Amino acid sequence: MPGDGPRERLLESATTLIREHGVAGTGLTELLKESRTARGSIYQHFPDGKDELVGASVRAAGAESRAAIAALRELGEPAAVVRAVVAASRAALLDEDFVRGCPVVAAAVSGPTYPTSVRAAAEVFRGWVDELAQVLADVGVPERHAVALASTVISASEGALVQARAARSAEPLDLVAEQLVNLVAAHVAEGEPVA
Amino acid sequence: MPGDGPRERLLESATTLIREHGVAGTGLTELLKESRTARGSIYQHFPDGKDELVGASVRAAGAESRAAIAALRELGEPAAVVRAVVAASRAALLDEDFVRGCPVVAAAVSGPTYPTSVRAAAEVFRGWVDELAQVLADVGVPERHAVALASTVISASEGALVQARAARSAEPLDLVAEQLVNLVAAHVAEGEPVA
Repeated sequence: MPGDGPRERLLESATTLIREHGVAGTGLTELLKESRTARGSIYQHFPDGKDELVGASVRAAGAESRAAIAALRELGEPAAVVRAVVAASRAALLDEDFVRGCPVVAAAVSGPTYPTSVRAAAEVFRGWVDELAQVLADVGVPERHAVALASTVISASEGALVQARAARSAEPLDLVAEQLVNLVAAHVAEGEPVA
Repeated sequence: MPGDGPRERLLESATTLIREHGVAGTGLTELLKESRTARGSIYQHFPDGKDELVGASVRAAGAESRAAIAALRELGEPAAVVRAVVAASRAALLDEDFVRGCPVVAAAVSGPTYPTSVRAAAEVFRGWVDELAQVLADVGVPERHAVALASTVISASEGALVQARAARSAEPLDLVAEQLVNLVAAHVAEGEPVA
């Protein structure tokens, strides 16, 4: 349901379409149709074309998710934070009947034809890991494990989302959530005597 | 370096190309060039076209990896098995200078235009999880954790591979390897009194 001006509608439509079809599988014709914009709008707002548009859409979607990660600090304890990260992917997948995956993964695997999109994906992942590491440290994970744990939570939930979408089953996400909670418990237990 | 007949060359070329460009980003022209086959060969061997060819190539690549997982049983202990799973992805990524990812992930996110490829990806993931669960159980992971742990190892290493490729850095894979070993240790310690 793209709203606002043509630029915002193009960004939202690009995110929606690459989540379903990937970057190469998203054509300009579908982008224009989905966003209800004129062909000239793409090059007006994104002079380098599709790669620049997709890169910007991935950064915008990534920033929203990063803010959502920051807000998990309020949950107050590491297991709840980790569960919530996986639950967000699970809810998005099930709400859309397994049709759409993660736009950042789509951009990350788009290959050398889309260098701006790949770079945007790498930066978004890095931002999520940094934010989640800070949240985990704030709620009690020992500092020396926070980045490794955060990176693993992002990797595991993204990998499970890829599996779950293909299988049309939430099971990979449920298994990952349970295992990540076990992992967090091991770290927090280890951290306690130090704290 | 595709060898053998046209069918085998097409399968190998499809795997190589989707690892770099994704399924939608792999054109028939590039497939024919890479595989040194005539256009008619694709439809002779794969009457339904690209989707059927990619599905078959993903199954073939998946079967090779499944055999490699089965062989990890010889390592004799769970931490070594888990390390070896991640190390295999790491080696493939670095040997090819971060150019190519996992063909099964490429197929899994290819979307509704490629239903045979998506289904093949789901079946390959399932097969890897089943095989790895059996290996982990054989080398000492308590049976009741083996499937969840195996699924998490596959999810985490695939997600880390996506991140690592985009960032052109092995760090996400190294962090996941370390964390998965911690997770295994927690399960095996818990399993010991039962065994």
